[in-house]
Amino acid sequence: MLIFMFYLAITAEAMTAALAAGRRNMDWFGVCLIACVTALGGGTMRDIMLGHYPLAWVANPYILLLVCGAALATIPLARLVDRLKWPVLLLDALGLVVFTVIGCNIGIEAGVHPIVVIVAGMVTGTAGGVLRDVLCNDIPLIFQGELYATVSLVTGGIYFLGLQAGLPVDLMALVAIVIGFALRVLALALKWEMPKFVYDREMRK
Amino acid sequence: MLIFMFYLAITAEAMTAALAAGRRNMDWFGVCLIACVTALGGGTMRDIMLGHYPLAWVANPYILLLVCGAALATIPLARLVDRLKWPVLLLDALGLVVFTVIGCNIGIEAGVHPIVVIVAGMVTGTAGGVLRDVLCNDIPLIFQGELYATVSLVTGGIYFLGLQAGLPVDLMALVAIVIGFALRVLALALKWEMPKFVYDREMRK
Amino acid sequence: MLIFMFYLAITAEAMTAALAAGRRNMDWFGVCLIACVTALGGGTMRDIMLGHYPLAWVANPYILLLVCGAALATIPLARLVDRLKWPVLLLDALGLVVFTVIGCNIGIEAGVHPIVVIVAGMVTGTAGGVLRDVLCNDIPLIFQGELYATVSLVTGGIYFLGLQAGLPVDLMALVAIVIGFALRVLALALKWEMPKFVYDREMRK
Repeated sequence: MLIFMFYLAITAEAMTAALAAGRRNMDWFGVCLIACVTALGGGTMRDIMLGHYPLAWVANPYILLLVCGAALATIPLARLVDRLKWPVLLLDALGLVVFTVIGCNIGIEAGVHPIVVIVAGMVTGTAGGVLRDVLCNDIPLIFQGELYATVSLVTGGIYFLGLQAGLPVDLMALVAIVIGFALRVLALALKWEMPKFVYDREMRK
Repeated sequence: MLIFMFYLAITAEAMTAALAAGRRNMDWFGVCLIACVTALGGGTMRDIMLGHYPLAWVANPYILLLVCGAALATIPLARLVDRLKWPVLLLDALGLVVFTVIGCNIGIEAGVHPIVVIVAGMVTGTAGGVLRDVLCNDIPLIFQGELYATVSLVTGGIYFLGLQAGLPVDLMALVAIVIGFALRVLALALKWEMPKFVYDREMRK
Repeated sequence: MLIFMFYLAITAEAMTAALAAGRRNMDWFGVCLIACVTALGGGTMRDIMLGHYPLAWVANPYILLLVCGAALATIPLARLVDRLKWPVLLLDALGLVVFTVIGCNIGIEAGVHPIVVIVAGMVTGTAGGVLRDVLCNDIPLIFQGELYATVSLVTGGIYFLGLQAGLPVDLMALVAIVIGFALRVLALALKWEMPKFVYDREMRK
């Protein structure tokens, strides 16, 4: 089930990334590359940080074809996908929490400290979007107040604490995904925002 | 021969990178660093993705001196290099295809899936330029329609298919380099462009 | 002593990073992430380049808590930290040279070529700031003429040459740190700058 949701999530990430690339008038190659970076960049960064080789897409390169296919399919469907705004946002939210749980699993397998497990989940869930924004030459959206990384933190925290308490893996994955997903959807619906640190005095002369 | 072209290509990449740094009024250190990232970033990224250690420039650090030397030499020669626009573009095209073939070789050695071999070639050929543009705070040029990554894909594809068909390595390297180089030069001369995905409705509200 | 200065330097880097994030109106999560990237990014990049696992913050994740704590503490203290401009700049200079010496040590342990040892020191000292500027969507400050990377080069050079000459490690660490620190402070006080390469003819059509 986690694997099915993983593919669904990757497809959703690829589609939102393709729309972002389209807004910057990128060519088809750029669309594919931004899609790959967004959908697979978080997991890649986590694996490089943990020294966990081979990378997921090196072991199973058909993921690359799936992502590029989803991205290219978005081009003719852009108008439709645009009207499907809510389904896409929901899939994106699902991706965030599913990636987080998968990232925590990799961290647990690698036997690292609990803090690093949570960080591995958060990197998996969020780093793809950061890389997308850097390549599109934006200040990453994730830093602009949306409740996104926090959702990942909460999801990973619930999942890890549940496992520590001896609860079964499948149950905890489900619980963490449902809670994280609900939190993200609520944040979107109610426009919850993180508090911001606004500081406009230039310190460096 | 591949090694000779490798050094030629690295020098050319370092010089075009130095000009890009000069256009942004960087200091000498910035010029060297942008040159290193552009000339060596693709190979470094490929090696990190494949877990292929030590990195080329760690094993042979004189490459770093060559790149910095070429970059610094570009400073007094900028006016001249500017007039030599076509030679530099040709060397840059040569670099693209030579790096691609070298990247495919590393992928084949590492025993990865054919798709990953092609990706390794493409990353080697193109990622340096992407990193340069990110550090210079541009949307990477490669996403703006130039036939650049596609040339790398075609070069890698021809090379790999030839090897699969049992043709000798040296022959296929030469064939792939000649075809890729011709394709890139034609694309430059005829201003071929990739189709773009232009989409200007903001999806995220 | 080096360890104590390491923690002091990490805290200082986290605080200056938090101010940079605040100037861009980031949320609290963004403040923590920019602080982690700035304080730990250089060491992480060095370890990934050398294939030196586990990363420092994976082995000792309490560093992450320290960095996030220092960053969040900067938010209410921003006005105060602003008035403490010189102490913060001094701590930042200390961080640069201490990180450089630590980076050289890791390079020496890994048994790489002297050039790579110096590069490892420089990456440790400076890459965090480069990553911070990329995430904040600036052209990295380090390329704009400040005597920053050069200080790192000189510090690493003195340290490594001293060790080669058979001088004791502790002495050389102290000497390199004092000289590097003095050089950076002089550069700040006297506004020394690296020569720039200004070149404004567009080469690519």
